[in-house]
Amino acid sequence: MTQPAYLDPNLSIPERVQDLLSRLTLAEKVAMMSHPAHGVPRLGIPGYNFWSEALHGVARNGRATVFPQAIGMAATWDKELIHQVGTAISDEGRAKYHEALRRNGSTAQYQGLTFWSPNVNIFRDPRWGRGQETWGEDPFFTGEMAAEFVKGLQGDHPKYLKAAACAKHYAVHSGPEKDRHTFNAIVSKHDLYETYLPAFKKLVTEAKVESVMGAYNRTLHEPCNGSKLLLEDILRGEWGFEGHVVSDCGALSDFHLHHKVTEDEADSAALALKFGCDLGCDHVFNEIPTAIERGDTTEALVDRALLRTLGTRFKLGMFDPAEEVPFTSIPMEVVACDAHRQLAYRAAAESVVLLKNKNNLLPIQPSTKKIFVTGPTATSMEVLLGNYYGFNNQMITLLEGITGRIPEGMGMEYHPGSLVKHPREIKQSWAPFMAQEADLSIVCVGSTPQLEGEEGESLLTPLNGDRDSISLPAVQVEYIKELAIHGAKIVLVVTGGSPIALGEVEEMVDAIIFVWYPGMEGGRAVADVLFGDIAPAGRLPL
Amino acid sequence: MTQPAYLDPNLSIPERVQDLLSRLTLAEKVAMMSHPAHGVPRLGIPGYNFWSEALHGVARNGRATVFPQAIGMAATWDKELIHQVGTAISDEGRAKYHEALRRNGSTAQYQGLTFWSPNVNIFRDPRWGRGQETWGEDPFFTGEMAAEFVKGLQGDHPKYLKAAACAKHYAVHSGPEKDRHTFNAIVSKHDLYETYLPAFKKLVTEAKVESVMGAYNRTLHEPCNGSKLLLEDILRGEWGFEGHVVSDCGALSDFHLHHKVTEDEADSAALALKFGCDLGCDHVFNEIPTAIERGDTTEALVDRALLRTLGTRFKLGMFDPAEEVPFTSIPMEVVACDAHRQLAYRAAAESVVLLKNKNNLLPIQPSTKKIFVTGPTATSMEVLLGNYYGFNNQMITLLEGITGRIPEGMGMEYHPGSLVKHPREIKQSWAPFMAQEADLSIVCVGSTPQLEGEEGESLLTPLNGDRDSISLPAVQVEYIKELAIHGAKIVLVVTGGSPIALGEVEEMVDAIIFVWYPGMEGGRAVADVLFGDIAPAGRLPL
Repeated sequence: MTQPAYLDPNLSIPERVQDLLSRLTLAEKVAMMSHPAHGVPRLGIPGYNFWSEALHGVARNGRATVFPQAIGMAATWDKELIHQVGTAISDEGRAKYHEALRRNGSTAQYQGLTFWSPNVNIFRDPRWGRGQETWGEDPFFTGEMAAEFVKGLQGDHPKYLKAAACAKHYAVHSGPEKDRHTFNAIVSKHDLYETYLPAFKKLVTEAKVESVMGAYNRTLHEPCNGSKLLLEDILRGEWGFEGHVVSDCGALSDFHLHHKVTEDEADSAALALKFGCDLGCDHVFNEIPTAIERGDTTEALVDRALLRTLGTRFKLGMFDPAEEVPFTSIPMEVVACDAHRQLAYRAAAESVVLLKNKNNLLPIQPSTKKIFVTGPTATSMEVLLGNYYGFNNQMITLLEGITGRIPEGMGMEYHPGSLVKHPREIKQSWAPFMAQEADLSIVCVGSTPQLEGEEGESLLTPLNGDRDSISLPAVQVEYIKELAIHGAKIVLVVTGGSPIALGEVEEMVDAIIFVWYPGMEGGRAVADVLFGDIAPAGRLPL
Repeated sequence: MTQPAYLDPNLSIPERVQDLLSRLTLAEKVAMMSHPAHGVPRLGIPGYNFWSEALHGVARNGRATVFPQAIGMAATWDKELIHQVGTAISDEGRAKYHEALRRNGSTAQYQGLTFWSPNVNIFRDPRWGRGQETWGEDPFFTGEMAAEFVKGLQGDHPKYLKAAACAKHYAVHSGPEKDRHTFNAIVSKHDLYETYLPAFKKLVTEAKVESVMGAYNRTLHEPCNGSKLLLEDILRGEWGFEGHVVSDCGALSDFHLHHKVTEDEADSAALALKFGCDLGCDHVFNEIPTAIERGDTTEALVDRALLRTLGTRFKLGMFDPAEEVPFTSIPMEVVACDAHRQLAYRAAAESVVLLKNKNNLLPIQPSTKKIFVTGPTATSMEVLLGNYYGFNNQMITLLEGITGRIPEGMGMEYHPGSLVKHPREIKQSWAPFMAQEADLSIVCVGSTPQLEGEEGESLLTPLNGDRDSISLPAVQVEYIKELAIHGAKIVLVVTGGSPIALGEVEEMVDAIIFVWYPGMEGGRAVADVLFGDIAPAGRLPL
């Protein structure tokens, strides 16, 4: 039996996809139009779920190296480092993908090679819960950093993509979370081109990002995944984008449910297809046959979309013999290996920003007799993670980091002292007295992923992810005051993914470092900064 | 110059202490009567702070192995294991003590060799926040287990104590925390001898515990540290105790401030000395000279106390050449070494109690496609610690343990889903939908050290450490219900140091394991139970 053309690695990818498409029924094609792209059993083609995440490490898929949250990586201002991080992530993603494939015969959600990262939205409103996912407020800087991330992630093989990155959320998407399914971003042409588009442009034209995700919102009245302006005119027209466009999850349903620019699912499917949204993270594209019947779209547009999405899968080598694809041999041992741990450490260390250091209180002197570690984030694993995180079996919290670094014989005590947001209920806490007995109090405060994040995620956000204030939570301010009144000498270690107004406490403390959501090596990196092994040379990207 | 007799290791300890006492002024003696026992610079005698802790590992003193909280160790019912744990702790304590001494020339609070552990109070009222420190509700079992702990801690050298253990809090001390400085325990002779004393008796008569701590409360009208019945008649009379008695911290002040059985500090000092409280964790003994002037006590009673407390220091080898004391050569490498980590793992694994396993849901089958890890304790480092804990630079939370154990290719997601006690504020959490998409939800709930503990410690306890109910917090019950309503198949992993009524949720879940506060290897041990590497064979000690 002759091998079908689509399986011939020597043919061009468009030829191969065209051949494959020629063998498929419309129903089979439609079943490939959404993020769980169904397989075609009669042809031996496995299903593939396009939805994977890798914002700061392979995410939501078991064990991986957890790098600092994107905003923390931005604070390193270190492009070469970010490139290495991207490379490490795609090494791990490859190893995990092939292992899952070997184990299960196919891969499920979050086990694929199409990573919906990075987030190159501009962090304009500091209350936005997802600002932590971005590279900050600067359009040029965002593009510079994210381009390196994409290049690292996608690799530089002449034929194969190591992984497919995704520039999201295109475009003019910066919160608020609670309105994201409904708002219409009215933006001047100047602001659009100077603020919101440069990073996307750079990723498309220079970093050759394989995929772009359309945002939930409308921009200048058009829903982003059905936008002539954004998709047809700018992305493919001006910038010559050749990859695929994927919708944000549920964004196609938003067309008719929330934006009300279409009547129903078939109508939404037709609109999205028309302007070149190629893949739905949604069930809306299941109604394509209805839209065709109605004459609102065509099978040719389906083929155009599949040429792009299947094209990505071909570029990833998913239809080629394993021995042809160089990345299939990346072993599982790379996952969370020592070198990657060291890279995560370096990224965390480089991200630490020194905001105050009165009388050079830092670094902690070896002659210090006793330190007191306190505050609601000292033992928090969540503040290492941020959002869109992977997991690791050795996450180093701030307290663990300090424990590993403190010289033997230097006294050390710990008391949480305060909750993140809620008032304490105990009559009298020992913490202030413990602070009095120490030479130095390392007070770990700040935001946590419970206080800021995405819709559906952060439990302490009445605004569904966003903050309503950029202040430090009142109980944390009160706690710092209480310690200061008791005469504690305070080093404030502040976690967070967004700006935090520290004016209320600044005068009460001697030193302040801002450490972001620093990833699995965060505690070790912060401790090494506190004890002077590492200079805190991170710079605020916002 | 001849060496003074007290420095001659060949003489008996009473002879040596008598010699030392003969060289001291009253002021110098009095300065040695409290937990920070001052040194005598003119004799080259360093100060020594008696207050150290080692409830489940060297505590409050930097890096150490963190074993499961005492109540968890009790659940192992494994005396040989407990003996090994005691041995490991005193190995680490010795190494750390000598290292601090080398570094600083003297040791500070929590850096000594006189460990105020174990707690052999009987866990009678399940709401008591400190019940977690005990070995449960059974007088016989408590003695059996704690005796092994003491033997391991103190070692079996014919001449030297490896460390000094302390049986506390003597006696009839089981909460409530908020009344501990005032209440008068009225107990029948039967209950006293059958319930509250057996463990103390066993530790004194069989395990030869070096020290006993008097409780805060009064027992049968006498403050425990000034009790003829407890100290003179029973402890030294009936049981022949030859070690020293130390007061709980601030307990001597309670005599006049709260129990109002004495007029002032001098009066309290006299009463304590009279019945043989030998060391004050307090400043009250500073008033001994006043009491002597008033004729209420004598220097002879001071000498009697110092004979005992200095005796302990001599037994520990603190006045002998280092080369004579075998434990001075224990290297720092033992601290949190792999063998001790493995012992902590074993203790945690053996402590897990299986409460329900409908249709043998556990262990998790390798064919499982996806698990969902959730609940407010999944990432909590605090639930590994309990109270009176040491620190380690590699604490393994439940989520980290599962991450390290899950087979590659099995899907895994995480969402905290619920807070420990407070209602969530987000409009709609993704957690229930994430549970729906998984084959199995591992729901980590229970008590935390914020909900139960000691006076001054647990931030979420209006009763200053105690619980007012043994129910699971309402928000946790609600969360389990929400998951169950969405059809989740639930394995409940329950943390806590005391009984928790699970009746409200029992029918909604398929499996339940109770894992206590399992120490630094807790997550790994629990994961290995979940995946079937370890049989959950712990038994409830309450």
